Amino acid sequence: MAKKALVVLAEGFEEIEAVTPIDILRRAGLEVIVAGLTGRLVKGSRAIIVQADKILDDVINDDFDALILPGGSMGAKHLAESDKVTSLIRNVMLKGKIIAAICAAPALVLYPKGILKGRSVTGFPGIGLESAKDVKYKTDRVVIDGNIITSRGAGTSMEFALAILEILTDAKTAKKVKEAVLA
Amino acid sequence: MAKKALVVLAEGFEEIEAVTPIDILRRAGLEVIVAGLTGRLVKGSRAIIVQADKILDDVINDDFDALILPGGSMGAKHLAESDKVTSLIRNVMLKGKIIAAICAAPALVLYPKGILKGRSVTGFPGIGLESAKDVKYKTDRVVIDGNIITSRGAGTSMEFALAILEILTDAKTAKKVKEAVLA
Repeated sequence: MAKKALVVLAEGFEEIEAVTPIDILRRAGLEVIVAGLTGRLVKGSRAIIVQADKILDDVINDDFDALILPGGSMGAKHLAESDKVTSLIRNVMLKGKIIAAICAAPALVLYPKGILKGRSVTGFPGIGLESAKDVKYKTDRVVIDGNIITSRGAGTSMEFALAILEILTDAKTAKKVKEAVLA
Repeated sequence: MAKKALVVLAEGFEEIEAVTPIDILRRAGLEVIVAGLTGRLVKGSRAIIVQADKILDDVINDDFDALILPGGSMGAKHLAESDKVTSLIRNVMLKGKIIAAICAAPALVLYPKGILKGRSVTGFPGIGLESAKDVKYKTDRVVIDGNIITSRGAGTSMEFALAILEILTDAKTAKKVKEAVLA
């Protein structure tokens, strides 16, 4: 059965960071559920409005192989403040599923939950993760440490998406999609 | 006054190719109008639904500094079949404004209108542009020839967007945005 990923969109999400993994994973035939945090029409950081497939409430108890959190500082702030997202992250960690966060999301959403402790991570520069003593901060464009995948910003979205795809499938599938999109 | 760009979304548009230039140009403060070809809710090639700002009819007579056409083979086919898009392209060419097309759009939308004659261009491989005797086909990721900017696929969207931005503003502005997104 195809692997299943959940992407949560909150008002202020970074559009490239959200759309790239959805697109890339669907190209490989994976099931991607795009869920709006509070409603179906969600406005991004650059005012692009995406109509989510579902609202988060409708899928919160479903099983997923990966939870994907885009950045955008306001979007990440909204995700960070949501009890539902906290509960999703807790479940993903308990089940050892994949959690993938980019840009502001590692620092603002994942770090405060304590799940990055001792992990190699990256994120958007200058929002606190570099100075956190309990993580191993890297400047690589994508960092994979166990089940946690982190990346840096809109310009690293393609590498981020392909890394998630490779973890959920295999190197051959990721290479095929990479070549098909000329990345 | 900020430069103004029009992005036309047709059912089947490639999401990364559309969202990346909209996002990147708006980051630099440019005005970007996202217009749906026939309606405001437009479903992309990977089933991501974007709510356009306008429908094309509402803005067809406005002045723009650039017309941006995303790919996705079905999306490009719909653009190619539209008399409104033909008229837009004719006006952009007459006024010497920028026309930017990526992936399937150069071959399916621009080439049949005859505007690529003698021009250096690129596009998604294998859909006919390589064998066209009246264009200078390149395999570069972005090709700029006068007012026509072409690019290859979803994976070249960031370079495509930054090239459009540089043409509409300047190298310094494009470099600043490139660095801000870590591209």
